[in-house]
Amino acid sequence: MAVTHQGPKGTRDFYPDAMAVRRHIEAAWRQASIDCGFEEIEGPTFEHLSLYTAKSGPGIVNELFSFRRAGGEDDYALRPEFTPTLARMVAAKAGSLPLPVKWFGIPVHFRAERQQRGRLREFVQWNVDLIGVNGAAADAEVIGCAVLAMERLGLKATDVRVRLSHRGAVAAALTSAGVAADKTAEAFELLDRRDRMEPAEFDKRATLLGLSSAARARFDHIAASRLPMSASAKTLAECLGVPEASLEGATELAQRLQSMDLAPWCEWDFGIVRGLAYYTGTVFELHAAGGKERAIAGGGRYDNLVELFGGPSMPAFGFGMGDVVLGLVLGDRGLLPADAMALLPRPDAYLISDGSDAAEQALPRLLMSLRRDGFQARSNWKTTRNIGKLLGDAAKARARYAVILGAELAEGSVVVKNLDGGSQEKVSLQGISDFIRASRRAGGP
Amino acid sequence: MAVTHQGPKGTRDFYPDAMAVRRHIEAAWRQASIDCGFEEIEGPTFEHLSLYTAKSGPGIVNELFSFRRAGGEDDYALRPEFTPTLARMVAAKAGSLPLPVKWFGIPVHFRAERQQRGRLREFVQWNVDLIGVNGAAADAEVIGCAVLAMERLGLKATDVRVRLSHRGAVAAALTSAGVAADKTAEAFELLDRRDRMEPAEFDKRATLLGLSSAARARFDHIAASRLPMSASAKTLAECLGVPEASLEGATELAQRLQSMDLAPWCEWDFGIVRGLAYYTGTVFELHAAGGKERAIAGGGRYDNLVELFGGPSMPAFGFGMGDVVLGLVLGDRGLLPADAMALLPRPDAYLISDGSDAAEQALPRLLMSLRRDGFQARSNWKTTRNIGKLLGDAAKARARYAVILGAELAEGSVVVKNLDGGSQEKVSLQGISDFIRASRRAGGP
Repeated sequence: MAVTHQGPKGTRDFYPDAMAVRRHIEAAWRQASIDCGFEEIEGPTFEHLSLYTAKSGPGIVNELFSFRRAGGEDDYALRPEFTPTLARMVAAKAGSLPLPVKWFGIPVHFRAERQQRGRLREFVQWNVDLIGVNGAAADAEVIGCAVLAMERLGLKATDVRVRLSHRGAVAAALTSAGVAADKTAEAFELLDRRDRMEPAEFDKRATLLGLSSAARARFDHIAASRLPMSASAKTLAECLGVPEASLEGATELAQRLQSMDLAPWCEWDFGIVRGLAYYTGTVFELHAAGGKERAIAGGGRYDNLVELFGGPSMPAFGFGMGDVVLGLVLGDRGLLPADAMALLPRPDAYLISDGSDAAEQALPRLLMSLRRDGFQARSNWKTTRNIGKLLGDAAKARARYAVILGAELAEGSVVVKNLDGGSQEKVSLQGISDFIRASRRAGGP
Repeated sequence: MAVTHQGPKGTRDFYPDAMAVRRHIEAAWRQASIDCGFEEIEGPTFEHLSLYTAKSGPGIVNELFSFRRAGGEDDYALRPEFTPTLARMVAAKAGSLPLPVKWFGIPVHFRAERQQRGRLREFVQWNVDLIGVNGAAADAEVIGCAVLAMERLGLKATDVRVRLSHRGAVAAALTSAGVAADKTAEAFELLDRRDRMEPAEFDKRATLLGLSSAARARFDHIAASRLPMSASAKTLAECLGVPEASLEGATELAQRLQSMDLAPWCEWDFGIVRGLAYYTGTVFELHAAGGKERAIAGGGRYDNLVELFGGPSMPAFGFGMGDVVLGLVLGDRGLLPADAMALLPRPDAYLISDGSDAAEQALPRLLMSLRRDGFQARSNWKTTRNIGKLLGDAAKARARYAVILGAELAEGSVVVKNLDGGSQEKVSLQGISDFIRASRRAGGP
C-alpha cells in the first residue's frame, strides 16, 4: 500500500522555510497595496473556460489547465491570470461601485507551460488595478505601488528598472516607418517577438508588413533605445521618428513620475510591447537591472476590457507581478537571509520544566495563558530534563526568553532568562506576561 | 462580443467587504497558530488523482474536481483536503525533519458537492497538525490552538463547544454492545451516519452487525450523552458500558485540557465519530452551541496515515476548520461589524488640494513620500475642489487626518486636520510624517 507520491510537475511544496520567503514577499505586496489605498479582492480559483476564450480566442486553451469534471457538463479552467475575473467582477457591479475602483489581489495562477527558470505551472501573482480613471495620474499611482513594494523588499533603482512604453507613441512610430493602419496589431506582435524569432523569419514577416530595410533598422534602433524620464518630447520624437504631438500621453506620465520621485526607477524602452492585444496606452515591465531573468512584472492600460466582459466602457490600468522571478532576484541581490526561518517572528517564551511534578503540572497552564496574552510560547517535547540542553534548544528556536519552571514554584515563581542578554530574574507566575512586556519596552529582545 | 459572465456554481467572488471578513478570520487563524508555535506550509492546489484514491479508494472521485488536461496524460484533482498533501510532504522529508513537526496552513479546497448552507464547492480551510508525538499533551496542544482562534474572534465557551470522543473508548463500548471485532469499522460508520439514515435502514444494518435491540438503545444513549471534562473515569465507564481501563486515553486528555483551562469549552460526546476511516484515537468537532449549523471544525488522531503515503510510522494529530460555517456563526453572534470595511486599517492621511498650481504640483510628491514613510495615504480623484465636500469624502473613507494643500504652501506648509478630534494645525511639508506619529503617540487617532 505504501507508495511515495510526488507533487505535479511545475508545482511547489512550500515547507516552512520556503513559505517564510513567500509570506515575506506577499507581506511587502500587501502592505504597499494598502498604503497606496488599494482594497483586496479574490475570485474563484477556476472559472468557466468561456471567460478566457472570450478574450483570447480558442487558441488559449493549449496554455490552460482546462477541464471538464468526470461526469460534469461544464468546461472550466484554472485561472491563468486575474484580469478576466477582475473585469467580470467590475462588470457585474459597475453601477454601484464608487470610482475609481482600486483593487489588489494575491491569487494563485496556473499555466500549462513547460517548466523553466523563472516559470512554473503554479505561481502566486500580485495584481494591482485602478479602474474608472484615465490619464497619467492613474498610471503613476499604480506604477508607484509596484515601486513601493520593491523598496520595502530592499531593492533599489539600481537593482530593478521600470521599463515604460506607450502604445500610442509606438503606433505613430510604426506608421511613420511605413506600417499600414490595419497592420499595427501585427507589427506590435512582431516587435514583441523579435528577440525570440529567427532573423530570416523576422525579415520575411517585416516585408509582409510593408517595412523597408530602413524601417527595419529603425525598429532595431527603437528597441535598443533607453531614455530617462527627463528626456524632452523633442528627444523622444527624434528617437521614434514621430511628431512631438504623438507623445502627449508619454510626456505627461514622465512628468507625473518625476513629481512622485519615481523617475530614478524608470526609463523609456519602446521595445516593450506586452504581447496581449488588449493594452491601449502605457505599457510597462519591471526587470532586474542588467539581468537575464524574465520580467518581474508587467502591465499597462486596458481601456476596453471591462466592456468586453459585459460592463460599461471603463478605463483601467494594472499590472501583475509573480513570485518566482522576484524570488530569484531577491536571492541574487542578497536580500533573503541564508536561513529563511529568520524571516518569521521569534518565539517570545520557551518554557522549560525541571521534571518535578509541580513543574510538569504548572507548565501546560502557563503555556496556554501566555498564548492567550498574545505571546508566541513554546515548550519542549523531549524527555530530557537537562536544563542546560533545553536552554540550548530555546536559543536554537530563536526564543527571546526562557521560562524555567523549577524549585521556585514552591513560592509561586519561575526564573525568566533573557536569551539575548543572558540576565535572569525570579518572576511570579502571574507576572510573567507583564514582565516580558516591560522588559521589552525597556529595550529587551 | 459583450457577454455577462458568472463565476462557477459554489465558488465566491470576494469583493473588498467579503475579503475583509475572510482576512479577519484568516488573521485570527494565523496568529493563533504562530502563538502556539506552529509553522506555516502550503502545497499544490491540485495533486495527482492517485494521492486521493490511495487513501480513500476510487469512490472518492465522485466528490472531487478530478480532471485530465485536454491533451494531457496525467489525472489530477483539485485538493479536497490537505491531509494527503501533508502526509506526502512529511513522508518525503521524514528523515530530516526535527520532531515534532508542528505545521499549519490556510489552503483553498474544492469539493464537487451540491451547494448548501455552510457548504460550498470552493472554500478556505485552516489546517493544524502536530506530527511525531503521541499522547494527551499533543492532542491538547492542537485543540488549544483551535480554541485560541475562537477566543481571538470574540467567541466564548457558551458560543462554541468542542465535542470530544475517543475511538478506543467507543470501540470498547461497541464490543461490549455485541459488535464483533471485525465489524468495528462498520459500526463506527453506522454510528456516524445514524442521523442521516431512515430508522428502518438503521435497524436493518444494526441487526446485520449483531446488535440486539438493547444494544441499539445503548447506541442512542451513548450518542445523546454529554459529559464534562471533569467526569470521572467511573462516570464515563458507566455511560459507555465499558471497564474503566478502556478510558485511559480519554481521561488523560481530559486532565490535560483541564490543566490548560480549556475544559470550559469541551464536553464528551461519544456520538462524534468523524466519518474518515483513518482516525485512531481522540476525535473532535467544534460546533456552534445549540445551533443547527454543520460542524465548524473537525479532526483527531491519525497515527497510520504518514506510513500510508510512503513515510515511516509516525503518530499525528490535526484538524481542519473551514471559513464558511465559521463565518455564519460569527455573523449570527454579532461578531462581525455591519460594515465589514471597518475591519480594514484606516487611511492615515487623506490629501486634499485646493486646486492651485502649487497644490496640484505638491500633492503627488507628498502622497508618495507619506506612503514611503509607511502611512496609508489617499487622495481624491474627483474634479471638485470644494474643500468642505472633500473633507466629507475623507471622513467617509475613515481617514485619521486630512492634509489640506492650499495657500500655506507659499511658506512650505500645509494644514493637517485631525478628523476624529476636529482640531487642525499648520505643519511644514517635511514634518507631516513626524507630526502624525507624534500626534498618534499623544492619543490621536
